Amino acid sequence: MKPMGPIPTWFGAEENMLLIGGCGAASLVDEAGDTPLFVYDMGIVEAQVRRFRQAMPDAVHLHYAMKANPYAPLLARMAGQVDGFDIASGGELEMALSAGMAPDRISFAGPGKRRDELEAAIFAGVTINLESEGEGRRALAAAEKVGKTPRLAVRVNPDFDLKGSGMKMGGGAKPFGVDADRAAALARAMIDAGADWRGWHIFAGSQNLDPAAIIETQAATIALAARLSDAVGASPPLVNLGGGFGLPYFPGDAALDIRPVGVALDNELDSLPDILRGSDFAIELGRWLVGEAGVYLTRVVDVKTSQGETFVVVDGGLHHQLAASGNFGTVVRRNYPMAVANRFGAAVAGDPVTVVGCLCTPIDRLGDKVSLPPVEEGDLIAIFLAGAYGASASPTAFLGHPSPRELLLG
Amino acid sequence: MKPMGPIPTWFGAEENMLLIGGCGAASLVDEAGDTPLFVYDMGIVEAQVRRFRQAMPDAVHLHYAMKANPYAPLLARMAGQVDGFDIASGGELEMALSAGMAPDRISFAGPGKRRDELEAAIFAGVTINLESEGEGRRALAAAEKVGKTPRLAVRVNPDFDLKGSGMKMGGGAKPFGVDADRAAALARAMIDAGADWRGWHIFAGSQNLDPAAIIETQAATIALAARLSDAVGASPPLVNLGGGFGLPYFPGDAALDIRPVGVALDNELDSLPDILRGSDFAIELGRWLVGEAGVYLTRVVDVKTSQGETFVVVDGGLHHQLAASGNFGTVVRRNYPMAVANRFGAAVAGDPVTVVGCLCTPIDRLGDKVSLPPVEEGDLIAIFLAGAYGASASPTAFLGHPSPRELLLG
Repeated sequence: MKPMGPIPTWFGAEENMLLIGGCGAASLVDEAGDTPLFVYDMGIVEAQVRRFRQAMPDAVHLHYAMKANPYAPLLARMAGQVDGFDIASGGELEMALSAGMAPDRISFAGPGKRRDELEAAIFAGVTINLESEGEGRRALAAAEKVGKTPRLAVRVNPDFDLKGSGMKMGGGAKPFGVDADRAAALARAMIDAGADWRGWHIFAGSQNLDPAAIIETQAATIALAARLSDAVGASPPLVNLGGGFGLPYFPGDAALDIRPVGVALDNELDSLPDILRGSDFAIELGRWLVGEAGVYLTRVVDVKTSQGETFVVVDGGLHHQLAASGNFGTVVRRNYPMAVANRFGAAVAGDPVTVVGCLCTPIDRLGDKVSLPPVEEGDLIAIFLAGAYGASASPTAFLGHPSPRELLLG
Repeated sequence: MKPMGPIPTWFGAEENMLLIGGCGAASLVDEAGDTPLFVYDMGIVEAQVRRFRQAMPDAVHLHYAMKANPYAPLLARMAGQVDGFDIASGGELEMALSAGMAPDRISFAGPGKRRDELEAAIFAGVTINLESEGEGRRALAAAEKVGKTPRLAVRVNPDFDLKGSGMKMGGGAKPFGVDADRAAALARAMIDAGADWRGWHIFAGSQNLDPAAIIETQAATIALAARLSDAVGASPPLVNLGGGFGLPYFPGDAALDIRPVGVALDNELDSLPDILRGSDFAIELGRWLVGEAGVYLTRVVDVKTSQGETFVVVDGGLHHQLAASGNFGTVVRRNYPMAVANRFGAAVAGDPVTVVGCLCTPIDRLGDKVSLPPVEEGDLIAIFLAGAYGASASPTAFLGHPSPRELLLG
């Protein structure tokens, strides 16, 4: 038996049927028409937003990094919940505007922005987080071409990292942002060229479960922003402190308590260096806001044995859930939390089983030797933590299977 | 510096411009309209088919595993080149039929076939490679429902593997096929139920570069097919010997010489056990037929430095080339062969560079500390071995970038 991560605490059952947003999993599948199905519970997203607002100082803006989940109905609801969207492409720009987010609350990061993307974003009035001196030149040229004053922030590759992060975005040579020792000069050059300088974007890492590490990084980020602003000789309108709030995916992970992070940040804001006293601050979250709100439901097509091992074959797979299969930036494959949705809470019985997707490849493995209640053909398997980096981050066309269905509740 | 795999020998240049199918890379991008672009050279595919026909005994059929590359114009051409298509979903069934492949030359493998897929395939007259006893029952039920005699083969999980394979599909507990010791009983049951029994599908592994290992596995596969057929008491119309022919992707890899494989297989066919004397044989290849025919062209958006390291940022990335980024079933990330398409053959200069995609994630790395000629904004980077498991096996929707363009030459 190999352990799986903890099932998010939001979920329970009625008569052993998993409830999502108060609805039984099987009836949700009926409503959507078929499996595989992603269900997103907006109630959980809103609860996370409330949790953030309660823990963090009022002055701190909440931004949604829409790469985590760009499902249009969710984005439209999210636009009313957060203070800004962070986008990473021209396609995301269109989606963000369609969702009703005001352009002056959108910022655009990404190391490879094309000229057409820069032009569209500057024309729309979106803030560009500059990733290099070359991008600064291209942004000015794009602004000239579209006849707008560009809103430009500078993304900084900090000289520290967020310790224990799932993905490090700072602390060493990186493709993101400009090194801290060149950031002030770039900001100064943009101001001198007539740009509307919007401040700093400093993103040191993501998917972290240690409040102390996040607190330390936020303090270092504010100190760096102050130092850089002093060097520029101007107060930044906004300091984007990055994200980093993680979720417990795997065995042994414990939920991040953001309350001490909020207390520490409140203290930081009470004793700000002079140059940041008029600045706004933002925290940019994707995964933490939407990850637990999503459940992937897939139906058991076959239960078979091979050399004494039991395989549960489902109609979904890595083409919808690349991350859960362990093929998306993971070094060691570990089991996401999963359950038999129509036997939720039933006693585990028999030997562990391996849950595989329907793809004809050995890497399509969703649960490796997991302990589940008895499973039969037709049962529904629920994979949790499916709200972020699921449908949109998976190779949906692989092997010609249908795209997954998606449903937003609440 | 980290090495990269060998550039396939098909490619050369004219005035330092990479030629694909005799056309310059830059003019192909103009023709397609923009980067990122997959170019497939049908001439290379046809040369691989000829190489196969020359090396293998005439009696051996060549099947195309279309999961490797289902681009419709390529499929349509492929239908005239090979003796059959192997499909893995209902979606691939539709694509195979649209490409003009006759249903009786299509076979359908995959561990999680849904009822609607079984019904469509049986109705069309396609052979189902049964993956379990349960699937046997479902296939008979589907045949009853659509009023057709089903064409059924049995996929066998062999009791040996293909040594040194990139992906093992046999030799241990597996989700594919039925264990060898239960295969004959399943075939017998299907015959007794009135099915049109088509034989065996025995796939022991893929992506292998060692002729001796392939020879040994093919001999074992034929012996297993004979043993199973004797147990059934019937000659199989077709024995699908699987695939396994690999391509050199990485430093130190050498091309597979298939000629000794053909010689050995010829000897095997000359001394077949009685029960296989009337059987047809097939080899099922995907990657080996199309992998080297594809080149992924992506334009340099930015060249930047961070802490003394140079990053080349391109407008493509892992959303089109998941495998090349090292995130598709790879344990240790290694560099695919790549080149600056418009400086092909030019001298390497300066320090190694890291080629990253445009996605805002640290896992979007296409070339890690590779040695290239000097690179500037606007240059074209070519990534080779892009003909198999490229566009269709990547998360194209991730971060909202446009889908890649595709172009078939020749």
